[in-house]
Amino acid sequence: GQPGLRSNEVKKEWWHINKIKPYSTDLKSKKLSTVKVKGNSFVDESGNVIVFKGVSISDPDKLIKDGHWNKRHFEVIKSWGANIIRIPVHPIALHQRGIEEYVKILDEAVTWCTDLNIYVIIDWHSIGNLHTEVLAHDMHNTTQKETFNFWRTIAAHYKGNSTVAFYELFNEPTTYDGQYGTCTWDEWKLLMEQVIDIIYAHDRNKIPLVAGFNWAYDLTPVRNNPIAREGIAYVTHPYPGKRAVPREPKWEEDFGFVADKYPVIATEIGFMKDDEDKNLVDDGVYGPSIMNYFHKKGISWVVWVFDPVWVPQMIKSWNYEPTDQGIFFRNVMQGKFKYSK
Amino acid sequence: GQPGLRSNEVKKEWWHINKIKPYSTDLKSKKLSTVKVKGNSFVDESGNVIVFKGVSISDPDKLIKDGHWNKRHFEVIKSWGANIIRIPVHPIALHQRGIEEYVKILDEAVTWCTDLNIYVIIDWHSIGNLHTEVLAHDMHNTTQKETFNFWRTIAAHYKGNSTVAFYELFNEPTTYDGQYGTCTWDEWKLLMEQVIDIIYAHDRNKIPLVAGFNWAYDLTPVRNNPIAREGIAYVTHPYPGKRAVPREPKWEEDFGFVADKYPVIATEIGFMKDDEDKNLVDDGVYGPSIMNYFHKKGISWVVWVFDPVWVPQMIKSWNYEPTDQGIFFRNVMQGKFKYSK
Amino acid sequence: GQPGLRSNEVKKEWWHINKIKPYSTDLKSKKLSTVKVKGNSFVDESGNVIVFKGVSISDPDKLIKDGHWNKRHFEVIKSWGANIIRIPVHPIALHQRGIEEYVKILDEAVTWCTDLNIYVIIDWHSIGNLHTEVLAHDMHNTTQKETFNFWRTIAAHYKGNSTVAFYELFNEPTTYDGQYGTCTWDEWKLLMEQVIDIIYAHDRNKIPLVAGFNWAYDLTPVRNNPIAREGIAYVTHPYPGKRAVPREPKWEEDFGFVADKYPVIATEIGFMKDDEDKNLVDDGVYGPSIMNYFHKKGISWVVWVFDPVWVPQMIKSWNYEPTDQGIFFRNVMQGKFKYSK
Ligand SMILES: [Mg+2]
Ligand SMILES: [Mg+2]
Ligand SMILES: [Mg+2]
Ligand SMILES: [Mg+2]
Ligand SMILES: [Mg+2]
Repeated sequence: GQPGLRSNEVKKEWWHINKIKPYSTDLKSKKLSTVKVKGNSFVDESGNVIVFKGVSISDPDKLIKDGHWNKRHFEVIKSWGANIIRIPVHPIALHQRGIEEYVKILDEAVTWCTDLNIYVIIDWHSIGNLHTEVLAHDMHNTTQKETFNFWRTIAAHYKGNSTVAFYELFNEPTTYDGQYGTCTWDEWKLLMEQVIDIIYAHDRNKIPLVAGFNWAYDLTPVRNNPIAREGIAYVTHPYPGKRAVPREPKWEEDFGFVADKYPVIATEIGFMKDDEDKNLVDDGVYGPSIMNYFHKKGISWVVWVFDPVWVPQMIKSWNYEPTDQGIFFRNVMQGKFKYSK
Repeated sequence: GQPGLRSNEVKKEWWHINKIKPYSTDLKSKKLSTVKVKGNSFVDESGNVIVFKGVSISDPDKLIKDGHWNKRHFEVIKSWGANIIRIPVHPIALHQRGIEEYVKILDEAVTWCTDLNIYVIIDWHSIGNLHTEVLAHDMHNTTQKETFNFWRTIAAHYKGNSTVAFYELFNEPTTYDGQYGTCTWDEWKLLMEQVIDIIYAHDRNKIPLVAGFNWAYDLTPVRNNPIAREGIAYVTHPYPGKRAVPREPKWEEDFGFVADKYPVIATEIGFMKDDEDKNLVDDGVYGPSIMNYFHKKGISWVVWVFDPVWVPQMIKSWNYEPTDQGIFFRNVMQGKFKYSK
Repeated sequence: GQPGLRSNEVKKEWWHINKIKPYSTDLKSKKLSTVKVKGNSFVDESGNVIVFKGVSISDPDKLIKDGHWNKRHFEVIKSWGANIIRIPVHPIALHQRGIEEYVKILDEAVTWCTDLNIYVIIDWHSIGNLHTEVLAHDMHNTTQKETFNFWRTIAAHYKGNSTVAFYELFNEPTTYDGQYGTCTWDEWKLLMEQVIDIIYAHDRNKIPLVAGFNWAYDLTPVRNNPIAREGIAYVTHPYPGKRAVPREPKWEEDFGFVADKYPVIATEIGFMKDDEDKNLVDDGVYGPSIMNYFHKKGISWVVWVFDPVWVPQMIKSWNYEPTDQGIFFRNVMQGKFKYSK
């Protein structure tokens, strides 16, 4: 028995259902070509292979507080040559605004991106161990229940929209060497398959993105025990600190081999000078070598982060002057980088 | 070490335990005959078989807000011929009032029903997938933890009271074709057995009611894998839209066969004209056919819902004028319906 | 991608990480000898066996509200002869103050105890079934997630501090004869091993304390199925009401046999006259017999509770006049008790 709703009733009590409505898909409105997985590639409706190159913005909640949540922000990113934008949704921001309001904010991004021909990744930006529900920091705090419900709401809302092409199920899984408790690959795989099933029950035209352990770096378990669902892609975050130069042989072992069989997208890469975080420090080799490696392997990529404060920054300030990595990756996105043979 | 409480202490800090007291059972007060399961029937203390016929009220929280939480409401239901009333407790209403206050409200209903010789079903009125904790709407939102704790509190409180004869553990289990995630029958069975164990550890004189999937319609898994606990009954909600005419052969396959071995109670049935919800729309055949089918099978039933707003309504307004289904089911409860041979 | 923090930024939004800092360990500051498990004993860094004898204080939150959270309180305990103090952290007190504030309060105790040469047990003072998350009363209400996160925060904070020698993972596990749902020893063991793994990933120099069922009385499953982790000790709470006189043979079966193989610490014992709680009532035999039994077995112990209100009390009022059990256990701690041969 589900309490009904007569149209002449005042809709204010809890028994008047107030579901989030689907993103409006006006039949006459513009629609990007739906992206699908084919073999180890992403393809559009005509079967053309797409390699995605773009950036992560900061959390929309931050951009609103910064006064820069506007189409101009997305236009600048487009002018840098990106064909994809990743939107990180931090659990704490969702808690503070509520899902109804947060979805309206995402809708603005989706509308701007549709207009600009940019695809969107919605990224559930938690870090830690979802199995034990020990997450890295307050901003990442969530539960399995909330994660399931988040994706159910998002999947229902963007069904039929092709700009939102990717759902990144959980940003960076890690047990922090056991500090967040243990999680086996089978336990992680089960959680991801549960989320994928929820998404696919709503919408088969989205590509779920699944990361591995070590803060989304390590995909070695995929060799023997891949996620048992079709149409997905794998994620890696190969920051400079993960491996020493020469990195290519390790990248191949750690995640690159997956790209021979499944689509892979590095949803975070980046570097900076002089940071306390050794993981991010540039050695002068990282940028060109990873661009060449991805090019050879057909791996898509997204730079972290198009923000003047969050590190490693792509812009120096709100006049959008690029940082070193901003200049480097903008050149690549604009086709000005010369790949090695 | 459990902090104690000396009688001369001011009872205000968290270490002064404030447990909910049991429903007061004055030894001289009236007591209905305790209902038990015997074979596939409900029987009273004398062994007489009881077939229950009654109605669901709306959530007590709504009736209070409507200004109709009073004995009169229950007297009208009695005058219609009901021998049972189902009380749906929506998780959201419990959250808003708190368990202490909500139990006091339930106590009023129990006292009125004892006086009127009407048995009570307390119904944990959630809808969705309790395994993944993805529930249908905000009003149904709960957790396994809360569900266990709700039944523990209720079971402790009504121990020794015989008016409260049934505990409906979870209103309508459904995965919504996977939109709420997956749940196997074994997973559901385990959850139900955990709840039953909590109830039975407090009180063996209550009858737990267990529903199947498809919004409490489908009991087919009971054939090979029944709930492994004695003294329970099964629930079905066979609304008109579940099956096309002739429905009887399907009812038999879907839930009726269970009634040959266990007691079955259809805790929701009902119909209406012209609703948007196809599930509820009357075809003129539904009412008489389901009454005849239940009669033949000895299945108890409860009509949804004795409210002028929630659908399908049994009353048109607060003057208690019956709707079409109100007239129909009132006639049956009052013995004015002629069963077919 | 974890939002970074530039030193010139205003730290006020959620993306400015505000982690709890480690307990400051000034290299010049005093440090107690680190306690370790060796065989079935606790030993200091020189290999000397330590038998712990001390008291539980009440929850620091209560002592603050009572106006007695000060070093004097700990000095009195020291003057009674204790070499250990157990600090019970009730989940409700943690919820009310928040972990950041609560840790600062614990730090004060740790500093006072270091100065007084008293070791500390931090005790997660919940009661009930952590597997089903049905806990005894509001004050004990918690989840597996919160329990994991509590220990992760505490373990990170006190890494390198040797005054905090013991982590009592969960005060009193019990299903209350099924009223809190079921929990097998394997389920309980798994939970405890998960918590131990979180602690050990931070700090191998702490001793996790694991209790058995029946409100931390019963350790019989340890015989065949011990916790599969090194360096831990077991807990029992053998209050008078658990067994009838002569208790020694039952104690041996119920928990004493464990002390032949692993360290055992009775983190709660105590008695009183004329209480409603039969579990605590003194029969004149309990005190001497349990002291002799522990002495023979090398079992450490902690009396519940150094408070004038919580029962059984050790002090009559805030002038610290001892109760009967206060006098008795003070004598033992001060070496004035004559053990039988
Ligand atoms: Mg229904
Ligand atoms: Mg695990
Ligand atoms: Mg105790
Ligand atoms: Mg990262
Ligand atoms: Mg269990």
